[in-house]
Amino acid sequence: MIERLCIIGVGLIGGSLARALRETGFCNEVVGCGRNPVHLQQAVDLGVIDRFDTDPARAVAGADMVLVAVPLGAMESVFESIRDHLAENAVLTDAGSAKGSVIEAAQRAFGAVPGNFVPGHPIAGTEQSGVAASFAGLYRDRRVILTPADTTDPGATARVRAMWEAAGAYVTEMTAVHHDAVLAATSHLPHVLAYTLVDSLARLGDQDEIFEYAAGGFRDFTRIASSDPVMWRDICLANGDAIELQIERFIEDLQALKGAVHAHEGDKLLEIFTSAKQARDRHTGK
Amino acid sequence: MIERLCIIGVGLIGGSLARALRETGFCNEVVGCGRNPVHLQQAVDLGVIDRFDTDPARAVAGADMVLVAVPLGAMESVFESIRDHLAENAVLTDAGSAKGSVIEAAQRAFGAVPGNFVPGHPIAGTEQSGVAASFAGLYRDRRVILTPADTTDPGATARVRAMWEAAGAYVTEMTAVHHDAVLAATSHLPHVLAYTLVDSLARLGDQDEIFEYAAGGFRDFTRIASSDPVMWRDICLANGDAIELQIERFIEDLQALKGAVHAHEGDKLLEIFTSAKQARDRHTGK
Repeated sequence: MIERLCIIGVGLIGGSLARALRETGFCNEVVGCGRNPVHLQQAVDLGVIDRFDTDPARAVAGADMVLVAVPLGAMESVFESIRDHLAENAVLTDAGSAKGSVIEAAQRAFGAVPGNFVPGHPIAGTEQSGVAASFAGLYRDRRVILTPADTTDPGATARVRAMWEAAGAYVTEMTAVHHDAVLAATSHLPHVLAYTLVDSLARLGDQDEIFEYAAGGFRDFTRIASSDPVMWRDICLANGDAIELQIERFIEDLQALKGAVHAHEGDKLLEIFTSAKQARDRHTGK
Repeated sequence: MIERLCIIGVGLIGGSLARALRETGFCNEVVGCGRNPVHLQQAVDLGVIDRFDTDPARAVAGADMVLVAVPLGAMESVFESIRDHLAENAVLTDAGSAKGSVIEAAQRAFGAVPGNFVPGHPIAGTEQSGVAASFAGLYRDRRVILTPADTTDPGATARVRAMWEAAGAYVTEMTAVHHDAVLAATSHLPHVLAYTLVDSLARLGDQDEIFEYAAGGFRDFTRIASSDPVMWRDICLANGDAIELQIERFIEDLQALKGAVHAHEGDKLLEIFTSAKQARDRHTGK
């Protein structure tokens, strides 16, 4: 149970967690924090939070659980502003899509990574953003990855785990480095490819014609290119090394495929396409 | 109106056209043709075709409209087998995803591209295949591109146009070369990227873990990697030059993006992501 949950950054991610925990009664009070009072009032009107404060230092006062769900580029300044104001019994966690950079930000802001800080990442979201898009079921049957360090208080980790489980998620733990490598491959690279493809097509001669003939598969393929550009800029800056590695791997594989097209190697193409189809059908379902 | 429609290759594409034309009464009789009598009997049982013949020469007898909807690699042998058996008043069209190669196949099979041959490409389909996946609404409000040559009989083109319009499609005409360039960019490249990405991930260390953490966006992004591998091998062989060009363009753009990640150029990343999001939201809707 959480007595007072403070959510800094009440958007799709923070708002959906608040909705889920209120629905199940896992949390007594939710205090929102953000820079825009209009958005925060909207969150109150929608019943997502009980009240809000635009000052992080005041917002975290007395909260036993604090979730920072702001873009990666804003983590450090949020940590700085709450540093001296967290309650004795407070557990601090975040929802950033890259973990190494958030841990470094905490290190800089707090002097050392606090034992009550549990870095986390809910693998959920849509290409929508904002509290209006939030819904209680966002985390149901989805994965949440926690990346506690050796110095993290196990009790703090257990409380963050219980919170996400109450929202319906499966929680797993791994190192921050492993998280950042896996996510670079499964999430960051696909987003980079989708953005690059759409931008690339948009710069072709006749944009209207190009998109007119893009079929249904294209719409699915590029949906993630409608994601929040600021969030994805921050992810690319925060997890740059791992993303670069994945882009390099991908370019090598794409060069090999281009070579097979050039050399009319039908068997090789069929092998690649068949292995991809089998892997996708097996792992992600249709 | 079509008196007798012969469909060679009764799968998703051919089967959906037959269903649509029967539903609207635009066609009196549908004869199916293919290599597998079990599939053809299924098409009869599903009410998609009236009867079938596994011999193309016999199947086209007396048909005033013949649609060849087989993989690109099988076009030439189908053309050869029907060459001397088409009715006097028959119009011949196809549903191949690349047009230059089909026109070359017709040239080789018939000696010259026949005046009654109207190359066509319905921009529709799902990652499913087979007649069981066919449905009458597949072409509703979708594009069909016809690429008649200067020597094509305008009456034949008009009849093919009327057929697709009866199935609910919008029909446009362009040259085969232009078609192949546009489709390489909007359809063939995305498929190649999706196949390469999934194959690439499947060859990473722990396949189960990799796909476990792939989020919802990944499922959408890679749906087209579940498409028929044989069909896509044939497309890559048939439209290789245009596809190679698009892969090269894409790799250049991806290298530039990797450079921006490496140099921590946040403004440049934001510009690319924003332009992509705007183009997608504007052109394809959410």
